[in-house]
Amino acid sequence: MQRFPTIGVVAKRDDAISDTLAALLAYLRAQDVTVHTDAGCAALMPERLQACTAEQLRACSLVIVIGGDGTLLHAGRALAPAGVPILGINQGRLGFMVDVAPDEMIASVAEVLAGSFHEEQRIMLSARVEREDATVKRMVAVNDLVIRNQAAIRMIEFETALDDGFISTHRADGIIIATPTGSTAYALSGGGPIIHPGVNAVALVPICPHALSDRPVVVSADREIRVRLKDGPRVRAVCTADGQQNDALEAEDTLCITRAEKPLRLVHPPSYNYFEVLRTKLHWGRDRV
Amino acid sequence: MQRFPTIGVVAKRDDAISDTLAALLAYLRAQDVTVHTDAGCAALMPERLQACTAEQLRACSLVIVIGGDGTLLHAGRALAPAGVPILGINQGRLGFMVDVAPDEMIASVAEVLAGSFHEEQRIMLSARVEREDATVKRMVAVNDLVIRNQAAIRMIEFETALDDGFISTHRADGIIIATPTGSTAYALSGGGPIIHPGVNAVALVPICPHALSDRPVVVSADREIRVRLKDGPRVRAVCTADGQQNDALEAEDTLCITRAEKPLRLVHPPSYNYFEVLRTKLHWGRDRV
Amino acid sequence: MQRFPTIGVVAKRDDAISDTLAALLAYLRAQDVTVHTDAGCAALMPERLQACTAEQLRACSLVIVIGGDGTLLHAGRALAPAGVPILGINQGRLGFMVDVAPDEMIASVAEVLAGSFHEEQRIMLSARVEREDATVKRMVAVNDLVIRNQAAIRMIEFETALDDGFISTHRADGIIIATPTGSTAYALSGGGPIIHPGVNAVALVPICPHALSDRPVVVSADREIRVRLKDGPRVRAVCTADGQQNDALEAEDTLCITRAEKPLRLVHPPSYNYFEVLRTKLHWGRDRV
Amino acid sequence: MQRFPTIGVVAKRDDAISDTLAALLAYLRAQDVTVHTDAGCAALMPERLQACTAEQLRACSLVIVIGGDGTLLHAGRALAPAGVPILGINQGRLGFMVDVAPDEMIASVAEVLAGSFHEEQRIMLSARVEREDATVKRMVAVNDLVIRNQAAIRMIEFETALDDGFISTHRADGIIIATPTGSTAYALSGGGPIIHPGVNAVALVPICPHALSDRPVVVSADREIRVRLKDGPRVRAVCTADGQQNDALEAEDTLCITRAEKPLRLVHPPSYNYFEVLRTKLHWGRDRV
Repeated sequence: MQRFPTIGVVAKRDDAISDTLAALLAYLRAQDVTVHTDAGCAALMPERLQACTAEQLRACSLVIVIGGDGTLLHAGRALAPAGVPILGINQGRLGFMVDVAPDEMIASVAEVLAGSFHEEQRIMLSARVEREDATVKRMVAVNDLVIRNQAAIRMIEFETALDDGFISTHRADGIIIATPTGSTAYALSGGGPIIHPGVNAVALVPICPHALSDRPVVVSADREIRVRLKDGPRVRAVCTADGQQNDALEAEDTLCITRAEKPLRLVHPPSYNYFEVLRTKLHWGRDRV
Repeated sequence: MQRFPTIGVVAKRDDAISDTLAALLAYLRAQDVTVHTDAGCAALMPERLQACTAEQLRACSLVIVIGGDGTLLHAGRALAPAGVPILGINQGRLGFMVDVAPDEMIASVAEVLAGSFHEEQRIMLSARVEREDATVKRMVAVNDLVIRNQAAIRMIEFETALDDGFISTHRADGIIIATPTGSTAYALSGGGPIIHPGVNAVALVPICPHALSDRPVVVSADREIRVRLKDGPRVRAVCTADGQQNDALEAEDTLCITRAEKPLRLVHPPSYNYFEVLRTKLHWGRDRV
Repeated sequence: MQRFPTIGVVAKRDDAISDTLAALLAYLRAQDVTVHTDAGCAALMPERLQACTAEQLRACSLVIVIGGDGTLLHAGRALAPAGVPILGINQGRLGFMVDVAPDEMIASVAEVLAGSFHEEQRIMLSARVEREDATVKRMVAVNDLVIRNQAAIRMIEFETALDDGFISTHRADGIIIATPTGSTAYALSGGGPIIHPGVNAVALVPICPHALSDRPVVVSADREIRVRLKDGPRVRAVCTADGQQNDALEAEDTLCITRAEKPLRLVHPPSYNYFEVLRTKLHWGRDRV
Repeated sequence: MQRFPTIGVVAKRDDAISDTLAALLAYLRAQDVTVHTDAGCAALMPERLQACTAEQLRACSLVIVIGGDGTLLHAGRALAPAGVPILGINQGRLGFMVDVAPDEMIASVAEVLAGSFHEEQRIMLSARVEREDATVKRMVAVNDLVIRNQAAIRMIEFETALDDGFISTHRADGIIIATPTGSTAYALSGGGPIIHPGVNAVALVPICPHALSDRPVVVSADREIRVRLKDGPRVRAVCTADGQQNDALEAEDTLCITRAEKPLRLVHPPSYNYFEVLRTKLHWGRDRV
């Protein structure tokens, strides 16, 4: 019996992927599995594929994503809450999460289907926006939630808290709340630390803070983080999930963030090595002089 | 004969300033000088003052600004091109440029009028936006010119050049081009160095750059800096002068920046000390432990 | 019956502490407790006090430290392995760990003795130096273990690993391995993040690394960190615990670091608030402008 | 007539250079020039070459350095005061200053001898150590002068001044005073900005400063920088020039730094481009994602 009897395939709408997608589908169809293809696949091969429903994808026992980290972030937010494991195939350029190269794809997928793989659980964030005692919005994020000033002029002012405990008042361009997975993405550009996925923690990274002592803070993912946008003339801010989805915030809104109930389940070939990906992506060891 | 026969007064529209303004005007009227008051003054004392014209201010031999650094930045952009020296009075909280405290105001102004003062020349920036071989916009700045992404999602991509020489391609939230005066403002939050006003240089500070090696670069103010916004889907960016005035940019626009023809002339009491202001504003010497 | 029947007192050898120490001892002697005083106390009051043994201190049910954070670090390394809780009294200047001010001392100690207190467990580090398959040295640390180049010239080269997994090769002045407690000490000067004590993690912060991508990494405290000093001409390095105790390292030495078996038990008055201490020590909220 | 009738050759003592050196000497001997070879050359080819005197090198009209940036720094400190222009050949890996690759060497040298080259003047630093009103030591530096704590324990405390004006008191591991040339070396690891060689300025970069507001400061190279080591128990510090030459400092010593009278004259082939070297060395444009 198959470990993964129903396999979904999610593809970035990029013609450069067509050959990889075709090869993957040919391989999967030769196995004893049911295959569902998403709208991205259907857009790449309109004559041969139909888009499955979101519900069908969420019912798969494994989803294979072909594209970049952005494609996987999108799929992760949709599928992690359903507990579906995800395997990421890149387009020829290593990603932090899409770690299987096209030319290793068939061998890697074969290993995974045969039960030889490494499953990693990455914590995700669940957020709600509270406005005058009502929850007006809910979001999830694999990498990060970002509150950012949208007015061209002036910074925004906000308060942070951990559970009921006040942390500080900040004046900055915004703040990044990042998971360990997101610590190598935007938070790193903002001066945050790299957090290994084995740490149950979240980083709060202020963006261009006015005060030089307003530094990144790492807190436990078991606790609730609250960010309240202070009132002010012409406050105009947004909250963004994974740099992909965004909603306007109003003055006095509070963003409440906890670890999502279910983690992102990332499936890797047995050879996967977290720090090897970092060494490649961050050019570690390729020195300045 | 008076060194400063015609004195302009510019005030922030903040009721907390009224008493200081009244005291200044009373003092000035007792001297043998002509006094012009701006619209800010008139707003604070509508029954007694009338707003002079911008032309009258530009023809003054000295302008006294009462307010915060923001008030002085605004006045500086308007008056520096006319060569008018400016003296800054703060509202009780030291500013980087409004360095005279209200309780020292009369004594300081008396010293200045008597010819005992320190004049500092601060370089300013002059910028033009080029779009398809035409100049569509001109700006000046005392502190900085900032190009910033306005789309909630994704960073912007741009190229920098020094005169005709390509510097680099950047992916970031934006870039700050700061004078020495602006080096202690927004550029410092972005990770830029403090540049003493005696240095004829400009700092290019990328904002949250994607590449960790994309670091602040200091170049001569004698050269032209060019920043070209690269094309891309849904590019939405603005250029801001001193965080106060802003204009939308389009993909392929080039911002060309040179030192302004005339510097900002800052007048200080003889006791003024640049590093003392920094020590106070940056809490130097008040240690963490 | 007393919750803390035997109380040790540890004092910094600083005459400024004498009055506080005298007041504390007078108070304790009026309670139904046994009091042991350390060599620091005896040095301050040679006519009245005798130094107890290290063994007597380790057998206390509570130790009260009067001095700075440095005094508490020293006591913590000695006492935490014995499981003794510690209460820190400062000399008039708030410390990160000596959080009780002299003028609140008697009231705070009374609260603690009456059973009203907040106990915090801070993880500590245990390290051994391996040289040619032998363990040549063992150290513990409350804040951090630091490997640092001691040659005036050139940086050192070293490799890091997490359990059996290679992290990276580094060229730098050294590396700081810091607990959450140590994250607000030297590691913060090196660009590391602030880590809340509720996070079970350790920060690896390279000191002035040659490569700009060699950034702080936060890993789980459940795993072993290994730092191996690479061979090279004239390698001269030291390993320092809490900036107080140090040992020379040789080329090819490996420093192996795990969480210490027992945490540091910090006792605070009920009003203690971690972030309030940070806000005071880091001047949060006292803005640049 | 030859533009450069007398040419010195300086080589790193590294066998990998022998072939390049042999090719260079063969080429030079075919020209109508006098050639002097230094002790490094003689060490590589003991049977064929003799070491010239330092005086002979200083009298050359051009010196060609084969090695790494370190070799050129060493030669620069010795030759710049004599006004000798230097051309740098690398060993196969681009340096910031040794920018000619071995396989382009003959063509580049031919261009230079024919008068087709780009000469760049890089400011250098001249320093003296003052101890109790006497000058006890003098140093020059191409890249930087660094004061660094040598005690394993504690930081050092020092004061900085610009001419007669006090800048600040610092507690740190040390301080880097860097030229624009040195701004891409150690100072960059310490968080300093990149300073284009066309800027007449010097960066003061504190190393791991205790205070988060103790940031890099850029000052005019026309002024004197003074760093005074404060007294303290067991002060042990060194001053290092270009990371190559060092001298012990004592408490209360003052390091006085000015721009050296003569700059380093760097000769480049006409194709040389400063920012192209930076793009290559700093991996600009090779993105993280």
